[in-house]
Amino acid sequence: MANGTTPETKAATPVVISIDAMGGDRGPAAVVAGLVLSAETFPDIAFLLHGNEVELGKLVSREPALRGRVTLCHAERVVTMHDKPAQVMRNGEGTSMWSCIESVKRGDAAVAVSCGNTGALMALSLIRLRRLPGINRPAIASFWPSRNPTGFNVMLDMGADIKADADDLVQFATMGASYARNGLKLTRPRVGLLNVGTEEHKGRAELKEAQERLIALQEVGDFEYVGFVEGSDITTASVDVIVTDGFTGNIALKTGEGVAKLIADVLREEFTRSIWSKIAAAVAMGTLKRFQRRIDPRRANGGVFLGLNGTVVKSHGSADATGVAAAVRLAYQLAKSGFLERLAARVASADQAGQDAAARAAPSGAEGGTT
Amino acid sequence: MANGTTPETKAATPVVISIDAMGGDRGPAAVVAGLVLSAETFPDIAFLLHGNEVELGKLVSREPALRGRVTLCHAERVVTMHDKPAQVMRNGEGTSMWSCIESVKRGDAAVAVSCGNTGALMALSLIRLRRLPGINRPAIASFWPSRNPTGFNVMLDMGADIKADADDLVQFATMGASYARNGLKLTRPRVGLLNVGTEEHKGRAELKEAQERLIALQEVGDFEYVGFVEGSDITTASVDVIVTDGFTGNIALKTGEGVAKLIADVLREEFTRSIWSKIAAAVAMGTLKRFQRRIDPRRANGGVFLGLNGTVVKSHGSADATGVAAAVRLAYQLAKSGFLERLAARVASADQAGQDAAARAAPSGAEGGTT
Repeated sequence: MANGTTPETKAATPVVISIDAMGGDRGPAAVVAGLVLSAETFPDIAFLLHGNEVELGKLVSREPALRGRVTLCHAERVVTMHDKPAQVMRNGEGTSMWSCIESVKRGDAAVAVSCGNTGALMALSLIRLRRLPGINRPAIASFWPSRNPTGFNVMLDMGADIKADADDLVQFATMGASYARNGLKLTRPRVGLLNVGTEEHKGRAELKEAQERLIALQEVGDFEYVGFVEGSDITTASVDVIVTDGFTGNIALKTGEGVAKLIADVLREEFTRSIWSKIAAAVAMGTLKRFQRRIDPRRANGGVFLGLNGTVVKSHGSADATGVAAAVRLAYQLAKSGFLERLAARVASADQAGQDAAARAAPSGAEGGTT
Repeated sequence: MANGTTPETKAATPVVISIDAMGGDRGPAAVVAGLVLSAETFPDIAFLLHGNEVELGKLVSREPALRGRVTLCHAERVVTMHDKPAQVMRNGEGTSMWSCIESVKRGDAAVAVSCGNTGALMALSLIRLRRLPGINRPAIASFWPSRNPTGFNVMLDMGADIKADADDLVQFATMGASYARNGLKLTRPRVGLLNVGTEEHKGRAELKEAQERLIALQEVGDFEYVGFVEGSDITTASVDVIVTDGFTGNIALKTGEGVAKLIADVLREEFTRSIWSKIAAAVAMGTLKRFQRRIDPRRANGGVFLGLNGTVVKSHGSADATGVAAAVRLAYQLAKSGFLERLAARVASADQAGQDAAARAAPSGAEGGTT
């Protein structure tokens, strides 16, 4: 397992990403095709590839771009989309997903990437990597297309768990802000709590409690708390980090995907319904292609598990080569920026501030630089 | 108040709709413009128009289409978008919204329509009209664009309340199915519970409980229960009635609206970015206009309050004439079909079946025809 990570190579130490090749809807061929795109983009990337050695060996040997950059790690078994997380927690050893996470736990790779079963991936990540000190509930954070200058915002939790209390929401805000600082290069991200209205009296009790604590935490947390935001704000330029529980986040994400698909389908139908509309489509081809690129959901593929002693990127199960490459790019950027260490320092600092506040002391100012 | 409802008119008895002219974002002029469109469509429609008599009198007198079909009902005060529901419940008397609901309570109008503050409208509707027997929590139901043959499905609760237990979800299913039968002309609507996954073990406890009860209720309720559905299913052809709590429903609705707006904005930007794309837009004008009409959210304007002794339609606050006319069309259709009586019969029947099931007796078969 050493040839990708040995310091003897002439180039700088490679950035090693651990890849679960199995378990995605399109199988290992799509994953390997994605790695080819990634290898062409990042000269210093290397992969630990987990799954059936024979099958993967054939796929990798056909790709010159991957020569010398892939270490195969054989795993006999595969976690399917139908396996229940609780079963995978008990019997997951020997699967490519387990092996993929294990490489991060051992320090052989910086970040793990999988297209597999989300619930199982979170369950295995939890028992193998464990929570960061001070975190009750890890969360999945995703980029969401918006009118912000970067084109995206960060939203969490997208479905790691189905609930979140006020403590969890405050921790999500801290982690989401850290992710936005590192992933979107924002100095002081604007954080909002997702609610059914922007007025103070609206919504559930845990949201009101979290709101009060975020107002108090924004200085030491180095973010700007902008208050409650609504579903219609998610795509605007008014907020950078949207905090919600995993039930609501999952419904919002999938609803948004569904609406985007419906609109794209209707547009396609209208541009193919007659000979005249087909001619119009031909004339407008360049414009339509640019439009399609801008709303392509594959650009933003990759949910990040936050709150663990290790970074795990969950790719969409149906990701093709472009989608896999986007998830790997995200993993590479997070590894390169030392994101995990920054996040851990932020969480520790916010945790300390919370304890200080609880003890009615002044904030300790124990901030950890630009984490 | 009699000239719109007197039986002396030569035509059939008019369908009287009670309209709150104030409180919408665009003011009474947009409401009156919407009524003009409605009056042109429905020869037997008449209006009770609540608000400032002087202001409304001027607007109405300019419109020949409204001659003899509008009865002005003066109301001194207006509920604003910033008023809290609890305050409006205490001090709402004398507002145009109160007066609008009062006309339905007295039986002077069949259905009430308002573009005003949703929370206040629900609060006033609750205290003036009261719940239908057997209903714990009223709900707001909306049409949602989908790939279904009708082009829509029904979703509820869209934000009447922020929570719903298993009892509420089962009642929402019964009411939503009745609304789909009457509003979408479906014989046996397919009902689904919105969840974060379709597997049985997924989601919150109240969803699992509601699921078991809906499986048992589907025969007497005259709907087909299709199981858990996800956010991505809302826009598909796989379900007709989507049941969820008002917090999740509101977030899903506004997220969908936000995504649709973002996509429309990007499309507009791409078709105006250069002289070439403007030429392409000119060539594709007919196709783009058809596309725009198909995704126009104003077509589906109007949330219906279900579970009260009276029908109230909530129009979008920012509705223009087209939007107001869509909400009035919905009100007209519900009045014409005797929807309220059918819904009440369904609720009573489901309530009876629930009591029978609770008493471990066989279902009573006390079904009320095609309600």
